[in-house]
Formats: sequence, structure tokens, C-alpha cells
Amino acid sequence: MNDQEIKKIVETVVGNISTKNEMTLSLAKKLAEKVEAEAAKIGVNAVVAVSNSGARPVLVECMDDSYIASYDVAFNKAYTVVALKMSTIELKALSQPNQPLYGIQFTNDGQIVIFGGGVPLKINGKIVGGLGVSGGSEDQDTYLADFGGKVFDELVKENF
Amino acid sequence: MNDQEIKKIVETVVGNISTKNEMTLSLAKKLAEKVEAEAAKIGVNAVVAVSNSGARPVLVECMDDSYIASYDVAFNKAYTVVALKMSTIELKALSQPNQPLYGIQFTNDGQIVIFGGGVPLKINGKIVGGLGVSGGSEDQDTYLADFGGKVFDELVKENF
Amino acid sequence: MNDQEIKKIVETVVGNISTKNEMTLSLAKKLAEKVEAEAAKIGVNAVVAVSNSGARPVLVECMDDSYIASYDVAFNKAYTVVALKMSTIELKALSQPNQPLYGIQFTNDGQIVIFGGGVPLKINGKIVGGLGVSGGSEDQDTYLADFGGKVFDELVKENF
Amino acid sequence: MNDQEIKKIVETVVGNISTKNEMTLSLAKKLAEKVEAEAAKIGVNAVVAVSNSGARPVLVECMDDSYIASYDVAFNKAYTVVALKMSTIELKALSQPNQPLYGIQFTNDGQIVIFGGGVPLKINGKIVGGLGVSGGSEDQDTYLADFGGKVFDELVKENF
Repeated sequence: MNDQEIKKIVETVVGNISTKNEMTLSLAKKLAEKVEAEAAKIGVNAVVAVSNSGARPVLVECMDDSYIASYDVAFNKAYTVVALKMSTIELKALSQPNQPLYGIQFTNDGQIVIFGGGVPLKINGKIVGGLGVSGGSEDQDTYLADFGGKVFDELVKENF
Repeated sequence: MNDQEIKKIVETVVGNISTKNEMTLSLAKKLAEKVEAEAAKIGVNAVVAVSNSGARPVLVECMDDSYIASYDVAFNKAYTVVALKMSTIELKALSQPNQPLYGIQFTNDGQIVIFGGGVPLKINGKIVGGLGVSGGSEDQDTYLADFGGKVFDELVKENF
Repeated sequence: MNDQEIKKIVETVVGNISTKNEMTLSLAKKLAEKVEAEAAKIGVNAVVAVSNSGARPVLVECMDDSYIASYDVAFNKAYTVVALKMSTIELKALSQPNQPLYGIQFTNDGQIVIFGGGVPLKINGKIVGGLGVSGGSEDQDTYLADFGGKVFDELVKENF
Repeated sequence: MNDQEIKKIVETVVGNISTKNEMTLSLAKKLAEKVEAEAAKIGVNAVVAVSNSGARPVLVECMDDSYIASYDVAFNKAYTVVALKMSTIELKALSQPNQPLYGIQFTNDGQIVIFGGGVPLKINGKIVGGLGVSGGSEDQDTYLADFGGKVFDELVKENF
């Protein structure tokens, strides 16, 4: 193998790695579509938000007749799970009165959501973004976010 | 009946429907006036706010000597009930510590009100706007909002 | 004249004075109604806002199909004219680039409006509130605010 | 034609009308996809936002490697065009120093965008939402928004 050939192989590998660990709009769209289909199936008009590893929005989609308030909630769930590296249902327990993180909901300009419906999204164990779902009961939103987390794992397997 | 006559009937029906499902300033004024009269009767100086189906304001009126803080409260109640499709007294129960939506009061730029005094307003079962009342005790505001909800139902019957 | 009669006269005078210098919801409603009628006449769907001497809102009314953005604009015009004791068209000249108050539009959390459509409202030469109108061209809003200022003067004459 | 048949026709017409005048997520997705394809074609990584008739968001999508700042800009363009019923390039001219609406960019909590890239979206002449595009030069964003406006007109023809 000559230098040129080695360089090419390394670039290919590195290139794959660098894209493998990033949320893309394409992935986010596929994820949102499946979450929305599941939401429709269980009778929820959901807002679905996907963020990237910088906790910045990649996509927000509002199903017809979803709550107006759900936009901010879903958006902020997708922020929260990346910003704090845990699901919002985990954070819920920690942020109740007298619990370790009680008060975190008042920081960060109201961007921290402390009820179910948000999960971090990972590739090879590394958080690459977050999913926020809002529109049903807390149980429904939590279910849909968990569902989305599993869908994302499958999408990653298929796409890389 | 010929085509022309049918067309005319359809247009009339369609015209009625298209306006039937919308909040108007005229309706909002009539509603506010009756809520204010009732507030005066029970000794409350209320701020009355009415929103439309986009949770946008249609009218806000501040009775003489009402609380300065009540403007934002009434305005945000009228927003909350459309944005979440429930009364603020229903939301109150859901957003207490350890309850499903605890924390929603922090997520939407301070626009979510979680105590009594706001009700959605419906025409033919569809939410067309919201009523927010602030100025008395929570019980008084809740009473006045419920009173306004009934008044609105009567106004709709009279006007359509 | 006996003590009783004197007391009565004093109370009447004092009572008049104390209410004479205050914006009331009743006055604001009459004013708004006339401005809205004039707006309809010239084909403008206006938002009309009235503030009191504390630059706090007394009333905001949005004519059907008015601009969503006009709510904040009218509200803020009613604030601006009391907060700076001049009409917004006067302020316009002062706040252009290179003029004495250039930059005031960046202060006060975006509440200062620097184009036509707001006038202070006076009773006996004292500012008791402000009128903000938004919905047409600047010329139309300026016209409607000036119209409202004259209407207010007449209402004061009739009511006191 | 008997009463039953007429009733059926009327219901069909009414059903069509009631949905015809509303932005849907389905329409917004189709629109965004075509705008993104065109953006890719001209080498722009755009954020595409679509709002409904209440100037509330329906969809926001961020193409890979788009500006972080473009999220707010696209979102607010989609708000502005519905809230003021004009394109942002039209508003640009009106809001320059010494022009009628100079200062409107400061009045609505920073939600008013006064450069190109936003257009209202209409069905049968009625504004049902707005499109905001951000990511390229102003000319590119303006081009993409206009492109999207035309795409939307075609989508409406196809879908209704």
C-alpha cells in the first residue's frame, strides 16, 4: 500500500466517523415522521422537536390541531435533554421540592422542562441530540419520546 | 330547485359557518361588559381579557382601580386556556409539585397561568378563544370566568 | 348655610376633582368605540389602546382582521405618549439618526414607538392617559390618533 | 335533486372550505422540502419556517450546517409576514430611517424582521400562513422565499 492509498482510506474512515456522530436534518425528519405516525395511532396531536449536540434546534413540527403551548414545551424538552444529558422524566424526580435539583426550572430563562417527553439521542453512546415531544398527557409524551429514542437507534443502524 | 338557487343557499350556509367559528370584537365586548357587571356586583375590580383561536388577544379591559399586575395575569390566562385547551383551574391541579405537568409554568416565557380565572370559549364544541379574569381572590376569579363561559354560550345562541 | 350643607358642597367639589383627572374604563370605552367607527369608515382594521396616567393599560381592543403585530404597537404607543409626554409623531422627528433622541427606541425594553399613531390625552391641560392606534398606514394611524384626541376632549366636556 | 342529495353536496363543499383555508403540517412539509431542495441547488444551507394564520409556528427545519442565528431569523420572518400581512422585503422599505414604519423593528419584542426572506402564503386570496427563509445572502433568502410562495400556490392547486 502506498501513501496515497493509505491517505484515502484514512480520510474515508475519518469522514464517516465525523458524520456518524452528528444529527442531520435527514435523520431528524425520519425520526419525526415515525413519532408523528405513532402519535396519530394513539390519538395525540403532538409537537415533535429535535435538537443537535449543541442543544440547538434541527427541526420542530406541529401536528394539526396540536396545543399552541406545545411548541415551546417540545422545543425546550429537546434543549433540556442535551443541556443536562438526561431524559426529562429523570430530571422530574430530581427537581421536585426538597430534591437535589429543585430550582433548576427557574434557571436558564425557562428553557428547562421537568416533566416527561424528552430523551437524549445517542450514536455509539455519545449524545448527538435530543427529542422533545409534547401534546398528550405526560404518560403519552413520555411513551412517545421513549418510542422515538428506540426508532432513532434503529435509524442509526440502518443509515451508518 | 335550480342550480342557481342551490348555489345561493350553499353560499349562505357557508358564509354563516365561516363566521360562526370565529371570535369577534363585537362578541368579546358583549362578553366583557357582562363579566364586568358581575364583577362590580360582587365587589371585584377585574381585568377581563379575551383571546381568539390563535391565542392572540382580541380585547383587554381594566376596571377602575384594578390591580396593575392583573393585566398580565388576565392576558396570560386568556392565552393559556387556548394554548392548552383547558381551564386554568384544571391546569392548577396538573401543575402542582409531583403532578404530571409540574414545571409547565416555567416553560413558555411566563405565559402559562396555573390558578383559576381562565376558561376556553367554544362555538359548536370548537375552541374559538379564551377568557381570562383577574382581580379578586382565586375563587372570585374562577367564579367570574365560569360565569363568563356561560354568558358566552348564551351570546353565541343569540348571535348565530 | 349650615355645616351639613357646607360638607355636601365640599364633597361634591372634591369628588369631582378626584375623578376629573383620571382616565376611567368608561371613558376609554367611549373613546375606543368612536375611533373604531372612524377607522371602519376609512377602511382600516385598527387596534386601539388606551393607557392611564401611570402609562398602564386601561383598554386594548382589536378590530376584526386587524394585524397581529398591531397589538404590541398600539399598546406601546399608548405607553410611549404618557411615558414621554408627547405624541409619537413628535417623537419620530426627534429619534431619527443624528437627531437628539436617536437611540431612545432601543431603551425601555422595546416599548418606545417612534412613528405616528399615539397621542397623550389631557384633562384641564394635564396628561391623564394616552391613545395608541395601529392598523393602517402611518398617515392613517396618525389621523385616527388625532381624531381620537379631539373625541376625548369632547367626551371630557360632556362627562364632567 | 332531493333534499338528501343537496345536503350531501353542501356538506362536501363546506368540508372542503373549512380545510381549504388552513395551513396543515402536511402542506408545510411539502413546501419546506421543495425550498430546501432549491436552497441546496444554489448552495445555501437554509432554515425554513412555516407559520399558520395565527402567526404560530407549524414547522421549522434547519438544513445541515445552517447558521445558528438563522433559526430565530426564519422563525420571526414567518411570524412577521402574517402579523403584518406583507413580505419582509416590502417591510424593509417602510422601516428604513425617515420612512413611515422606522422603529417597528423594536416594538414587538424583537419579532419583526425587516429584511428579505419572508412571504405570506395565501389560499384563495386569504393569508393562511407565512414562510420564512434564512441562511444565504438577503438576495438568496428573498429568492428562496419567493420561490416558496410560488411552490405553495402550486401545492394548493394540487391538493384541493
